[in-house]
Amino acid sequence: MQRENKREVIRRLKSVEGHVRGIVKMMEEEDVTYAEVVQQTNAVFSAVRRINALLLKDFIEERALSDGASEEAVREMLKAVDRVAR
Amino acid sequence: MQRENKREVIRRLKSVEGHVRGIVKMMEEEDVTYAEVVQQTNAVFSAVRRINALLLKDFIEERALSDGASEEAVREMLKAVDRVAR
Amino acid sequence: MQRENKREVIRRLKSVEGHVRGIVKMMEEEDVTYAEVVQQTNAVFSAVRRINALLLKDFIEERALSDGASEEAVREMLKAVDRVAR
Amino acid sequence: MQRENKREVIRRLKSVEGHVRGIVKMMEEEDVTYAEVVQQTNAVFSAVRRINALLLKDFIEERALSDGASEEAVREMLKAVDRVAR
Repeated sequence: MQRENKREVIRRLKSVEGHVRGIVKMMEEEDVTYAEVVQQTNAVFSAVRRINALLLKDFIEERALSDGASEEAVREMLKAVDRVAR
Repeated sequence: MQRENKREVIRRLKSVEGHVRGIVKMMEEEDVTYAEVVQQTNAVFSAVRRINALLLKDFIEERALSDGASEEAVREMLKAVDRVAR
Repeated sequence: MQRENKREVIRRLKSVEGHVRGIVKMMEEEDVTYAEVVQQTNAVFSAVRRINALLLKDFIEERALSDGASEEAVREMLKAVDRVAR
Repeated sequence: MQRENKREVIRRLKSVEGHVRGIVKMMEEEDVTYAEVVQQTNAVFSAVRRINALLLKDFIEERALSDGASEEAVREMLKAVDRVAR
């Protein structure tokens, strides 16, 4: 994994961890509604999905560059990953 | 939210929290590969998806029962939720 | 299935069918790019996802109403379905 | 798009088209249940998802190879695409 992307993935995972802890706290301390909780879990769901996309793009970038692919080709491949509906 | 389901959602969220903390630790302490990390983030992704399904079913169950719906109708509605592809 | 929703699902499915036929035609007759095709298949993907949501909501509505649930309860349950991230 | 993958995508799209037509026919001619229809729309949903994955992998393969990437690197990148949860 490339250093910068690794740091970014760790940063995002820590944010997810804190977010989930916050949902637990909310549920334990307040009389929360379904709508309030599912709004938060949806946000966690999307955050993890974006982390997965970042991991995939990091792998492709690192692997392609180490194999001599051009920056342009790598850029196009990363864009292609983003185009596929999640 | 129904007490038992609320407890179950909290339990699962705490498990997700611990799981994410574990991924961070793994990434910080070891030279992990893409495959190893994405396997874990996929598991978190699925766990959050199942929590969302549980939240929805709890809402439908509670709302329908409180409105006098029969146990049988509620059961069928919860089964219907599970049938839709994620 | 409720008549009106059934008609709407059939209408949407026919639209998906036509859309897919259009993509095939595009691919057979033109030198299409990845971006052009995946934009269309993403649209089909979302359309089918929405059809699934409509099917689920139709089932819940019909089942709850036939069991004497109030219009208000049904409305809230359908809103709950829409809240869960797809 | 690479010739063989293009042919495969067209073949699969035609199969989706036929499948959707079949669902419409089923709904128009029979008293179908929610469960029967959603089982079919789920199958269409998954089929379109797999087409999207094939399109992405074809793009990455073609772009990387045309840029001189090794077969091994390309294979690993395609495997990486498959690892990310859908």
